[in-house]
Formats: sequence, structure tokens, C-alpha cells
Amino acid sequence: MNFSKQIISLFTIIVLSFVGHSENGHDAWLRPKKAKTVNVITSKQSPTISIAKNELIQSWQGTEGATVTLRIKRNKSLKSDGFKISENSIQANTDLGLLYGVYELLRRQQTGVSIKEEIINPSYDRRILNHWDNPNGSIERGYAGKSIFWHYGKDSLAVTDGDIKLWKEYARINASIGINGAVLNNVNASPMMLTAGYLEKVKAITEVLRPYGVKTYISIKFSSPSLIGGLKTSDPLDTEVITWWNNKIKEIYKLIPDFGGFLVKASSEGQPGPQDYGRTHADGANMLADAFKPYGGIVMWRAFVYSSNDVDRAKQAYTEFVPLDGQFRDNVIIQVKNGPVDFQPREPFSSLFGALKKTIIMPELQITQEYLGHSTHLAYLGTMWKEFLESDTYQKGPGSTVAKSTDGSLYNQKISAIAGVSNIGLDTNWTGHTFAQSNWYAFGRLAWNHELTNDQITEEWITLTFSPFDVENSQVKIDFSKQDWSNHFLKPVKHMMLDSREAVVDYMMPLGLHHIFSANEHYGPGPWYAPARVRKDWTPPYYHKADSLGIGFDRTETGSNAVSQYEEPLRSEFNNIETCPENLLLWFHHVSWDYKMKNGKTLWDNLCYHYDAGLQKVREFQKIWDKTKPYVDSERFYEVQSKLRDQSRNAQVWKDGCLLYFQEFSKMPIPYDIERPIHDLEDLKISTMKRPLNYK
Amino acid sequence: MNFSKQIISLFTIIVLSFVGHSENGHDAWLRPKKAKTVNVITSKQSPTISIAKNELIQSWQGTEGATVTLRIKRNKSLKSDGFKISENSIQANTDLGLLYGVYELLRRQQTGVSIKEEIINPSYDRRILNHWDNPNGSIERGYAGKSIFWHYGKDSLAVTDGDIKLWKEYARINASIGINGAVLNNVNASPMMLTAGYLEKVKAITEVLRPYGVKTYISIKFSSPSLIGGLKTSDPLDTEVITWWNNKIKEIYKLIPDFGGFLVKASSEGQPGPQDYGRTHADGANMLADAFKPYGGIVMWRAFVYSSNDVDRAKQAYTEFVPLDGQFRDNVIIQVKNGPVDFQPREPFSSLFGALKKTIIMPELQITQEYLGHSTHLAYLGTMWKEFLESDTYQKGPGSTVAKSTDGSLYNQKISAIAGVSNIGLDTNWTGHTFAQSNWYAFGRLAWNHELTNDQITEEWITLTFSPFDVENSQVKIDFSKQDWSNHFLKPVKHMMLDSREAVVDYMMPLGLHHIFSANEHYGPGPWYAPARVRKDWTPPYYHKADSLGIGFDRTETGSNAVSQYEEPLRSEFNNIETCPENLLLWFHHVSWDYKMKNGKTLWDNLCYHYDAGLQKVREFQKIWDKTKPYVDSERFYEVQSKLRDQSRNAQVWKDGCLLYFQEFSKMPIPYDIERPIHDLEDLKISTMKRPLNYK
Repeated sequence: MNFSKQIISLFTIIVLSFVGHSENGHDAWLRPKKAKTVNVITSKQSPTISIAKNELIQSWQGTEGATVTLRIKRNKSLKSDGFKISENSIQANTDLGLLYGVYELLRRQQTGVSIKEEIINPSYDRRILNHWDNPNGSIERGYAGKSIFWHYGKDSLAVTDGDIKLWKEYARINASIGINGAVLNNVNASPMMLTAGYLEKVKAITEVLRPYGVKTYISIKFSSPSLIGGLKTSDPLDTEVITWWNNKIKEIYKLIPDFGGFLVKASSEGQPGPQDYGRTHADGANMLADAFKPYGGIVMWRAFVYSSNDVDRAKQAYTEFVPLDGQFRDNVIIQVKNGPVDFQPREPFSSLFGALKKTIIMPELQITQEYLGHSTHLAYLGTMWKEFLESDTYQKGPGSTVAKSTDGSLYNQKISAIAGVSNIGLDTNWTGHTFAQSNWYAFGRLAWNHELTNDQITEEWITLTFSPFDVENSQVKIDFSKQDWSNHFLKPVKHMMLDSREAVVDYMMPLGLHHIFSANEHYGPGPWYAPARVRKDWTPPYYHKADSLGIGFDRTETGSNAVSQYEEPLRSEFNNIETCPENLLLWFHHVSWDYKMKNGKTLWDNLCYHYDAGLQKVREFQKIWDKTKPYVDSERFYEVQSKLRDQSRNAQVWKDGCLLYFQEFSKMPIPYDIERPIHDLEDLKISTMKRPLNYK
Repeated sequence: MNFSKQIISLFTIIVLSFVGHSENGHDAWLRPKKAKTVNVITSKQSPTISIAKNELIQSWQGTEGATVTLRIKRNKSLKSDGFKISENSIQANTDLGLLYGVYELLRRQQTGVSIKEEIINPSYDRRILNHWDNPNGSIERGYAGKSIFWHYGKDSLAVTDGDIKLWKEYARINASIGINGAVLNNVNASPMMLTAGYLEKVKAITEVLRPYGVKTYISIKFSSPSLIGGLKTSDPLDTEVITWWNNKIKEIYKLIPDFGGFLVKASSEGQPGPQDYGRTHADGANMLADAFKPYGGIVMWRAFVYSSNDVDRAKQAYTEFVPLDGQFRDNVIIQVKNGPVDFQPREPFSSLFGALKKTIIMPELQITQEYLGHSTHLAYLGTMWKEFLESDTYQKGPGSTVAKSTDGSLYNQKISAIAGVSNIGLDTNWTGHTFAQSNWYAFGRLAWNHELTNDQITEEWITLTFSPFDVENSQVKIDFSKQDWSNHFLKPVKHMMLDSREAVVDYMMPLGLHHIFSANEHYGPGPWYAPARVRKDWTPPYYHKADSLGIGFDRTETGSNAVSQYEEPLRSEFNNIETCPENLLLWFHHVSWDYKMKNGKTLWDNLCYHYDAGLQKVREFQKIWDKTKPYVDSERFYEVQSKLRDQSRNAQVWKDGCLLYFQEFSKMPIPYDIERPIHDLEDLKISTMKRPLNYK
């Protein structure tokens, strides 16, 4: 390094130190506050209570000089880590309950919500992030940089001071919204995770996360006994195998006495599993569950199974798991994706919810936007998740919502749990897109209380994340009132967020279309994508079934009969084209192009209007965001502005690609009152084959 | 080739033979007609009259079995190749006049215009295409394939049967609109053009063009005497040089007795010229003119001169040529581009028009869309040319339009002439974009009669080019009336054409902006383009002069004083910001961003609205074109549709690039009622540097 480079380097450091105080998103919704003084009285000492106390002192926005009491006191109305709050006191059964109460109190102060005495209990016991992080530091479906747990490159197992700082921040952010578990590695698991070095690192991570109440779990490869244990088989009924797992789990608990358990993807998408040995999912899961029993650990067993032979992938999880109902141990939880196919922009709920009556089920949501524009598109997912959680399964009569059939209200289950596939990476703002933080937030908040409205969640998140009032370093020149800010920032941005998932549905896959992405990247459109050597159920035509007659997957009684997996009256409702909800029409029906829909227009016209509406919505979001400029720091303003521009271009590619492709079948004109495509289909086909749309 | 390949090949040939009859645009506006029978009586035989007779027989749409008389008879009212037509007879002073009369008669039949006895004379004597074709077959600023005259690759000089067929078609199309001259090579001329092989080829071309009345010219390199003649100098006053040119011209006339003359770009943009030897343009041009005198040849001497030192490139042609007024021979014509800079989407007329009072001037128009979207954008240029021709120079009082000051009405000049830089290449449809044919057509028609309206020209062209009635192989299923066709095709398409140049102005360079293209390709936006080593007058900031105060080139009396080159009252009108036409505002003034314009909005807002309006207009064109589908063959429909899509994408890049760049100076928001940019400026800067926008 020569002298001038040193100067520049020094200069960079100075500038960065300064800029480091700007709103780079790293503080997420916990931005440093201009705190008032507060006295905190605690009846007990513990690392968790220390954190709770510190948080109050750092961020108190209540009466200057107030006294707040944190008290552990048994109360039957409080469930697990629930708490009772009032303006000046928090009561809980557990230390963690106190910490959660503190975060609730501070959140209310910061969002201006009144605080009266109130008991607040969690909806689900286990509120878990699933990290699809690989031991080499990459992340499957991660769009915000490399893993925060596993170093990319050679020193995957090193633990640096920087790691510890970052994990602590991570744990704090999670605790602030009630997330109490983290699966530290990809469900497509490496057997190496069970080797000593990795377990030591899991221990190191656990020690940082523990005071914040975030339990650690790992994903395991089912064939680990043969792969790393030197055994000839991994048959779950083989005694050597059983012994190997017993020893391994014992070894883990020796290192980590409060270890959470395993997440298992087995006999699924090429992953080894019990079926390789002629055994059932129950055989596999129970064997592990028995080994965990002495330690209180759990097995989360994924129901994401399908084979290339079946005529309808959407049916297979149900077909495989319903016969096993009642055979699973009480510390096994079947983890089921919200929809029957795979985290699409819109799906009906998976028919397994409510259908497994003697088996614990946990919903698996996807926070990372694998199918909703990665970290480029603004798509608030709370609306999608509420739609899912509030879906009525009718399995125990009307009102048997997915939420109630998984949170313990309807079924007698020892544990309740919910998982979200994380969107977190090493990017400074954790999630790549500032607004993707809102999905992390919404997952945590809904996992804690699935009755919260999206109105409340978004309002909380926007205020905590963007309000320039009473925060350090907001960098916004405040020459407006709180009311102005609410009118010109909070309200329009909330509107944008609440509309954003439907916009994605519209420009990607309206009316029940699903899985029409190009290739494996799951970003750009590819309804045409069908290379000869690719499994049919991995190509879009398998799902959209467009032909000269119409479009859509016939899952009625005369089709694949997937409707039969739903309880009445849903079964009949879905089965009948006239009663099937139009936003799921092409999920359940193959519909003729000129089918008259409820608005009197043909299916084809409706399809066109939806695609165009999606694009117009994104353009509207651009206008909304551009107008917020005076109310937001320039760093986040330009970041979001730029991403909305990408989204707008992408939405146009989606609209053009899908309409031009489907038009080859419909042979009908795109209604002349909507904007014409600006791309040619052949160009789009070539470019989506060559490289992902989001690759600059 | 194996058997199956042979089969495919055979199949391809069959299909192509069939498709060969489709509307691929090669017939331009002379599509084969379902002719009625006609008797043609001629008083004379000649190759030209044979053609005239044949045209009538091939395309007659008048009364079945009518008799038409073609008669050569002196008539003082007929100028040069003018003619007198009636329903059944054509009279002219020349054979070519008869041919022109035939084309006029047929055009009227095909466009349904009534034919009464009428004398029709040309506005300009010489109506010349300038081909910027290089001897190696490439074309400077050519966007429709390689040269039709010079083969690309090794056999540049070969003359094939295919060439002769193509040249004949070319000559016929030109004759049909009155074009009577062609400069066969680039103004940036190779000295090789004067060598025997090339002259032989010029002769071959001339022989094909001659019966159609298309005279040939060539561009020459001024330093040819030293480059290929073995002389030590090319000084125009040097006797050896004079002798060399005399001999060369004699040699040419021996081969081609009716040779037209030379086009000369000298002492311009690095081309050698008389100034290299301390001589004037007059010295150079007159030396050549003297050599041509005995043969009736002419010298077209270009006034496109500017040096990098001057503060205002727009002033230089005037500064250099006005002092020479009166010094040029009467067979020298100064060829002047319409605008003072260079074929921009909108410029004021060049101040030389009307100002050279004792020198013949010919306007040089550019048919090839160097600065208006190449062969990708639909831009009908007739509107631009009429705006130019009708501009009042005031040089001989009000009404001294450019047209009148060049066609011989105002000044006593032996010859009148007009040139258009051709957009023709080897593409099947000649011009790349079907609608670019309309510019070839409009140039010819206006050169013949500059009083034609664009309404008439476009209506003629659209009807001749697209009408499915009474033509062979139209491939359009006619289930509509002529009136329907007029309402649903002719009128909307005409509207689109008439609006198209203003659309380009709007999305590229509204309000008098000019020359803000990226790099040398002259296609995409590059207001930011200013590499350190590039001449300042070859970079956009030289022209737009955007800064924190405002934007535009101050050419007022207190600026570069280019206004002084215009005659009153124009000088004062341009000089005063309040009276300067708003569509030339930034050409003449550096205007503050917040300057209130006539509509009450700021300059910045107006700039934004113009850029957006340009984009919206292109989107409107897409709608218009998409609706024409039932009325046009699919080959041309999809070709134009696809190009409009490109244009729409490009217009968005232009809008975004220019607004985002200029916003860095204006620091004002883009009005919130218009669509937001979808590109980021930095991306556009990088991509326009890396590759042209039109490169797929």
C-alpha cells in the first residue's frame, strides 16, 4: 500500500465511521432512542433479566423518572412466557416472560399505543426461524448475503468477536418479537453438522442466544449413521443405528443441555429417509423422538414430500401422511408448508391442516421471498400469512381455522409450534431489502399472536423502523409534525405494504396460477420453461396446463380429485367452478379462455387485467415511495427507490412474458384499454434461459 | 447433408417460395396489382417510354379497356421533367416526364384521388439520394443491412444478375416518386472510388438506373491526386492537380456520358480539403467545377464544417461560407444540412439558408434515422422536413421560406437541388423498418413538390403500402369495407405517423435540447457522456450546458451570439427568452430550472412532462398498431409490433436517463402525477457506455 492509498484508506475509515451512524437498517426496528430516565426494580438477577433492565434504561419513552417493577410471580392465567403488563410493571412466570413484557412495553411507548393492565400470552409455544444456511456459508434461497452463522470460505467453524456481536444483535432482534428458536442450518442438511467441530460451534452460538431465550436446533441428514458413523445402514429400525443416534443426541446434550431438537427433511426431493429402508416417516421420526425423550428435545419432521410419478404433486403430502395419523410420538411435530405445493404467491392451505387429528402439526411459512421477488421486490407477507392462518379447514366444523387447528385450541397436543424460513444474511440491513425486515417482524408478531391485524403489525413496524422522532441519528430534518408524518409517510407506506403481496400475485400468478417460474432460480417468469430432461413436475406447464381450450390444473373430482382432501363444504365449493373462489380458480379448474367470470368478462380478459393491474400497482408504489422523500433518511430512501424500480421493470417482464405466452394458446387479443407489452416473447424466452432476471 | 436434412431443406424451399409471395416489404409502395386491361398509345420508342407503358399495363386501375396516350410535345408550362396528365393522357417535354406522369396517374388511381387535366412540375431540378455506402459494402449510419451497390467482403466490384435485378427495383421505386439522382458512395470517401475498377462499376450501375432517369454521382476524397494520382500535393491551385482532375473527369465521362457530378466533403471533420493548402472552399469547389463545365456536371460541396476550437459549433458553417458568397461557379451547389448542428430531432433551420444570396444552396436532409432511433423507432420525418422547408428566413422579407430560397423562386440560380441521406440497404424491405420506407417516400414526394401536405403524403404512402384491396397476395382476409379499412387502419396509422416525430423529440430532446446521445452510436441517451479525451464538441454537456442554475445553450447576443446570423425579426425573436419559440428554447437560451413557462409551470416540470409525454405517445402507438391486426398481413404486423415494443422500452430509457441526470442539477422532484423512472441512473450510465441500447 503506498502513501496515497493509505490516505484514502484512512479517509474511508473516517467517512465510514461517520456514515456508520446513518440509518443503514442494521438496527432494524430497534433503533437507538433518546431515552428518558427510569428506575427499574427487579426481584431477581439473571442474564435475561439484566437484558430486560438494560432495554428499559436504553429506550424508556414513558414518564421521566418513572419506576418500573419486573416481577416473577406464578399466575395461572400466564401461559409459558406470557406476561402481564401495566404502565409501570411487568409480571411473568419466567425470566423470558419479563423480557418479552419489556419489549411490549417499549413498543407501545414508541408506537403511541395506550397501556392498560393486560395479560398477553403467546399463540404458539415454539416460534422458530429455519435458517437454510449451509456449512460452507452459502444460503439456499438466501438473498441477503452469506450466512451469519457459518463463515463463507475456509474458516466456517471459527468464532470471532464480530460473530458474537452479530449473533447477540440477532438474538435481541428476535427476542423483541418473541422468536424463541432457530434452526441453524439448511434442511438439505450436511452430515457434517453432527460432527464435533460443528456441534462445538452450535454450542458457541447457543451461549450467545440463550439469555435472549432463543433455543437452537439443527437440521440433520437422515443417513448420517452410514455417512459419518461408519455404519452399513441408516435404517431407523436397525439397533446399531438407534444406538448411534442415542449416543449422538447424548453427546449434543452434554454440550448443550437446553438443545431444542432436530428438523428433518427425509425421503423428500432426493434426500435420504426411512423409505429408503422400507420404513415409514413414523418409523424414522419416532426413532429420533425416542432418543430425544430424556432430554426434552423435539423432532420437527417435514411433510414436504412428492414424487415425479404422481399426476398431482399437490396431493402427495396428504396421501402419505394421513394414513400415519396417530402413529407419531408426542414430541414429533410434522412441519407442513402453508400451501400444498411450495410457498407460491397464492395457494389454498395445505389439506393436511386439520386433517391430522392425532398428530402435532406446525405450519412452515417462508419469510425469505423465494417465490415473491427475492430481496428485490417489496412484498409484505403478513397479509398472505393471515389469509392462511384464518382459512377455515372445517375439520371440526365451521371456525376450524388453520390457526386453531395448530395452536392447540382444537386438538389436544403437548406442544404447539410455527416455523418461518429465514430471510436473514450478512447484509448490513440483515434482509437485503429494508422492507423485507417487515416479514421477519410480521412472522415473529404473528407467531406470538396470530390474532394481530396486519393493520397493527405494519403500523408498528413502520413506526419503529422509520419514525424520525425521538431516535438517535435519524438524519431526517424534522420540519413537520407527528401528524404530518403519519399522513405523508405512515399511511401511504402502510397502504403500499398491505397491497404489495396482491400486486405480486397479480403480476406473477393471478387467479390461482402457480409455479410458472423460469428454471430453478424462482424469480423471473417461465411459463414456457420445459427442457426435455427436466422432471415434468419441475416445469411450469405441469402446473398451468395451458392449451387451446383453456388454462389451469383440473383438481376437481373429474380431474386429479385433490378437492377430495378438503372437508365439506370446502370440497364442493372448490369442486364447482361457479363457487370456487376466483383467486384460486386456476388452481382447481382447467377453465376455457372465454369462460365468463363474475365481472362479466372472459377469463382471458381477466387474466390480462390482473397482470396489468400488478404492474400498475408497482408503479403506484413508486409514486408513493418517491413522495416520502422528505420523511426518510436518504440511505434507505434511495435503496428502496432503486429496488422499486427493479420491481417495476420485473413486473413488466412478468406481465409481458405471461400474457404473450398464454396468448399463443388463447389466440385472443389483449384488451385494448390496457398497456401493450414492450417485450417480445422470444427475447424473454432466451433471456430467462440465459440468466436470471435479477442478475445485473 | 443427410436425408432428413435434405427433406427439411426442400420443405424450407417450398415454404419460402410460398412465403416469398407474402408482404415482406420488398415491393415498398409498388405492390403488384390486379390490373385491368388498358391500351397504351405512344408516339415514340425509348427504354424509358417502354417502362412507362409497362407500368400502365401492369397496374392499370382505371376504366377496363381504356386507351391512354403518352405524348412528347413541347409545352412552355412544363418545366424540366414536368408533365400534364388527364384521365387518359400524359404529355411531357421528356421521356422521363412521361414516366413520372404514369406513376402519378397510377398513384391517383390507387389512392382514389380524382384526375382532372393538370400540369405538374417539380419543385427542385435535382432530387438526389446520398448513399453513405463504403466501397467495402458497409454503410455509415446505415441500419438496414449492407450496401446494395458495393458487396460486403471480397468481391466488392463484382456485378451479379442479382445486383442488376436489385438496382432495377431500386431505380423503379425512386422513379415512382421522382428521385432522379444517386450519390453512390459515402461522403467520407475512399480515394479508391476514382480508380478504374470502381468507375467501371459506377458505369454498370448507371446503365441499370439510366432508363429510370436516375443519374449517378460519386463522393470524392479531395486528396485523391496525392493519394492515388502519385502527385506531391492536392492543392487545388496547383496546375498538375488541376490537370489530374481534368483527366479524371474526362475519363469518367468517356465511360458515363451522362454522369452527374461529385459530392465533396472537404476540410470537414478531419477530411482533407483546400484549407490544408491555404485555399478556400471556393478555390477547391471551383477547380472541380471548371473541370466539369464541358460535360454539364456539377459539384455539390458540403457546408458541414466545424472545428473543435469554436465556442459554438452551430455558428461555424455560416462564418466560413458567407464571406465566400458570390465566389462560386454556377455549377457549384453548396449542400447545407437542414439544421446548424447535425440532423437532430429538432433544430432551427441553418442560418445559411437565404443568407448566401449569390451562391446556389441545396438542402441536405437525412432520411436514415441517425438521430431518430435508427431503423428501430417509428419516426415519420415528413413533418420535420415540412417544418424546415416552411421556416421563414426573412432574408428577402416575410415569406422567404427555406423552400423558396432554395428552389429558385427567390434567387436567380441555374440549378435547384435537394439531397436526402439514404436509409436503404440490403434488408428485404430496403429500410429495416417498414415505416422507414415512408421517409424515403416523403423525401421523394417533397423533393418533387414541397407544397404537398403531410396529410396527403402519409395517406398516399399508407394506402399504397398497406391497402389490401386490388393487390396480389395481400394475405389479408378482407371481411371489411374500404370505409372500414380507412377508419380502422388508414386514419389511426396516419395519426400515429404524423405524431411520431414529435414523440421522438419529446422522449429524446424536447424544448430545444440537442445532441445528448451516448457516445458515437447516436442512439441511446448520454447527457452524461463526456470522456476526458473526447473533443468537447463531441460530448453532450457541450450542448446542454446543464448546471445548478439551469440548462440550455446561450446563443443570445450575450452568449455565443448565434442569433446574429438570423435575419430580423427572427434574430430578436430568438434572442428574447419571452418570444423564443418554446420548442427551441434550450437551443438559444440557458434557462433557469424554475423559469415559468407559458403554461405557468416551471421549465423543470415542463421538461419532465415532455419526456413522459414522449413515452406515453409511443405506448399509444403500440395500442394503435395492435388494433390494426385484422387489416394487415401478419409479417409486417409483427415486425412493426416488435419494433414499437423496442421503441417503447427505449423511450423509457431516454426519459429515465435524461430526467435522472438533469435532476442532479435541478434538485427538483419529478412531478408526482407522472410515472416514476424505472431505471437507476448509474445502471444506465454503465450500460450505455458498454454497449449501444439497440444491441441485443
